[in-house]
Amino acid sequence: MTVMYDRVALIGLGLIASSMFWAMKRGGIAGEVIGYARSSETRDVAREIGLCDRVCDSAAEACEGADLIVLCVPIGAMDAVSREIAGALKKGAVVTDVGSVKRAVIDVVGPHIPDGVHFVPGHPLAGTEQSGPRSGFAELFDNRWCVLTPEGADADATAKLRKYWEALGSNVDEMDADHHDLVLAVTSHTPHLIAYTMVGVADDLSRVTDTEVVKFSAAGFRDFTRIAASDPTMWRDVFLNNKDATLEILGRFTEELFALQRAIRQGDGEHLHDYFTRTRSIRRGIIEAGQDTDAPNFGRNPKP
Amino acid sequence: MTVMYDRVALIGLGLIASSMFWAMKRGGIAGEVIGYARSSETRDVAREIGLCDRVCDSAAEACEGADLIVLCVPIGAMDAVSREIAGALKKGAVVTDVGSVKRAVIDVVGPHIPDGVHFVPGHPLAGTEQSGPRSGFAELFDNRWCVLTPEGADADATAKLRKYWEALGSNVDEMDADHHDLVLAVTSHTPHLIAYTMVGVADDLSRVTDTEVVKFSAAGFRDFTRIAASDPTMWRDVFLNNKDATLEILGRFTEELFALQRAIRQGDGEHLHDYFTRTRSIRRGIIEAGQDTDAPNFGRNPKP
Repeated sequence: MTVMYDRVALIGLGLIASSMFWAMKRGGIAGEVIGYARSSETRDVAREIGLCDRVCDSAAEACEGADLIVLCVPIGAMDAVSREIAGALKKGAVVTDVGSVKRAVIDVVGPHIPDGVHFVPGHPLAGTEQSGPRSGFAELFDNRWCVLTPEGADADATAKLRKYWEALGSNVDEMDADHHDLVLAVTSHTPHLIAYTMVGVADDLSRVTDTEVVKFSAAGFRDFTRIAASDPTMWRDVFLNNKDATLEILGRFTEELFALQRAIRQGDGEHLHDYFTRTRSIRRGIIEAGQDTDAPNFGRNPKP
Repeated sequence: MTVMYDRVALIGLGLIASSMFWAMKRGGIAGEVIGYARSSETRDVAREIGLCDRVCDSAAEACEGADLIVLCVPIGAMDAVSREIAGALKKGAVVTDVGSVKRAVIDVVGPHIPDGVHFVPGHPLAGTEQSGPRSGFAELFDNRWCVLTPEGADADATAKLRKYWEALGSNVDEMDADHHDLVLAVTSHTPHLIAYTMVGVADDLSRVTDTEVVKFSAAGFRDFTRIAASDPTMWRDVFLNNKDATLEILGRFTEELFALQRAIRQGDGEHLHDYFTRTRSIRRGIIEAGQDTDAPNFGRNPKP
């Protein structure tokens, strides 16, 4: 494999950064990887498990001499962290990020990027419900998509970052930041909010005990609990920073839900049957695109 | 293993019935298993793949001489099928069912059960998103729960049916039919309706193309598409027959969703963070109870 960046700095050492590190090692993509995390506990874990070639105690120090700087912190921390590193960025360096919302990140990070440094925002659409420095693994990005929203960033820097994500295992797309935020509101943010809500409702119901919710969860509910086990800070920041698109899709969702609710109340079986038939085809598309397993129950059943 | 019923009749040959057949064969639980399906195509498939020791062309014929009759048809077909078999049931036989709603089944099946025949309603809380005679497998019920709602049915018949489900691999619980319907509205029916709705919304959005929804589905949305790929007829009948409990839980869901929506609109990060933290613990309970895998992403990631 070819080294694409001599020195890469990972700012924040959670699921995405740690997976990027292991994927870089797997592919021999970076000469040296420097890490930084705000919490000293996370830095200790990183040193203990060999996450990053070197772990620094400040974000600015981690960025010194780096050719690629990846901001892997929750969106609410992007402003502070980009202020902190601005003075340490070398000419010609590329700054990117992995935030789940792009317009808000561009708005807060963009102004701190010095002249001669390229900012190419990005978002790898990959993850698990786990978080922290121990949760990463090299295969996380394999056959997933990474979206870049360059918004006029330097073409060479963008092209190189694209190749870098491909070397990590991703497919890469480019789009406008606002469109990204709308697409993600549909495929990620609203589904997460709905899952959190459903789990909260079940948790609240005093007539149905916790034990019953747990015991009988395999009838559908358990699927929602995986998503609703995701990192609370990350998701708080997503909703605070993709407010408009999320509220718009939530409005659409509520509208549809009310239509189905009325069909149930009125006993309109035809409406329900038509609706439930239509939704089957998207799953086939997702399986054909290699974005999910075709094994029943996501393969969680014991094999025959 | 011990034969528990000399002759078992499976009325309807979809996912649940075919899984019951393979689980009975695995455990040597039934002397002979007779099957019936309304569609001749399903009966042909059953004969082709050896599903049931004998496949009959009428439900009444399949029930002749049977010691246990299991109604495995959508809830909307329970009335017709129980009328059809009533005259063929032998004295001392046990009739049960696998319907996802219990009060409605009791109301329509109960009146057709002749004197001297025991009706013990049941519901195995197990399944996959697949359906039809080819979708069953012997392990489906292993460590899942089966709920019986005997409502004063013969104690010996109930005890024996309980042991039968345990022999199929299930844990067994008994409860009141109305309570069952409420619990299932929380752990199964409302989650399914919400998943169908979310998938329908994504399908509808013309500004986000199908391709984008499919490509970027791994960010959360794909989880909903599994549930929304379930059998439309079965689910139409569930909602038409568990109307009150589903509408009640939907009301609770909407209330919570509106509270979170307002928190997003008002930028109330503390409310969101608290909510998202609370919902994590239920998943731990589900994993500890052996009702879901602890592997990230349900184990769908390539292994490191």
